[in-house]
Amino acid sequence: MPSKHADDSERTDLPLVLTPVAVVERNGDEPHQCIQVFPEFSEALSGIDDLAHLTVLYWMHRLAPEDLQRFRVHPRGDRTRPRKGVFALRSPMRPNPIGVTTVTLVRREGLRLYVEGLDALDGAPVLDIKYGRVE
Amino acid sequence: MPSKHADDSERTDLPLVLTPVAVVERNGDEPHQCIQVFPEFSEALSGIDDLAHLTVLYWMHRLAPEDLQRFRVHPRGDRTRPRKGVFALRSPMRPNPIGVTTVTLVRREGLRLYVEGLDALDGAPVLDIKYGRVE
Repeated sequence: MPSKHADDSERTDLPLVLTPVAVVERNGDEPHQCIQVFPEFSEALSGIDDLAHLTVLYWMHRLAPEDLQRFRVHPRGDRTRPRKGVFALRSPMRPNPIGVTTVTLVRREGLRLYVEGLDALDGAPVLDIKYGRVE
Repeated sequence: MPSKHADDSERTDLPLVLTPVAVVERNGDEPHQCIQVFPEFSEALSGIDDLAHLTVLYWMHRLAPEDLQRFRVHPRGDRTRPRKGVFALRSPMRPNPIGVTTVTLVRREGLRLYVEGLDALDGAPVLDIKYGRVE
């Protein structure tokens, strides 16, 4: 049985608005990237200290509005390769510019999480932090 | 050198608004979950047919507003276990209710992706589809 076609009645939850919970910072002489959690979310960090891996969701804030409208791009920006759909790639250009990465938690200092493996740019709004790796 | 404290100047990108690109549907006699992509994003599916695994981001749309304000919860809802911060858990309750899952692509039929392993509820707005697993 084919599913019904998606129609406007399924889009009534809009708009979906995000609340940044932290910001990515890189400090001058600190080798690790820092996730600076906003004070109002401090409770959400309870018990995080002992974890080895975290999944971090962040907003790719440096993309231009037109980058979010390109649905087929050259893989890795290589113009010798034919364009592919962004849902078949990990290109940062996509309708909702959310990056997802697994990081290693190096240490926590209060509201600051020092991590390895975060590919976010400095200043990127962090949307979520989750236990462990994506399954 | 400690980082500067996050202040309001770092929050000027707000609001971050999401555009659903698809919806999760479960059909009566179809054993696999279906991601019904909205027609305006059809180009973004180009080249996806041959992929084995996809990362799917979706909005956990059944949560109540108060669920997004609980920053410490009992792990797996088990009240015999002490509360932990939601950033140290995979609880669906978190400030931005975005779920991330790796799925197996079973088959594509036009705008429909039939998948295995998607833990989203029927009707959940899909925010992004990415190549492969989260690294």
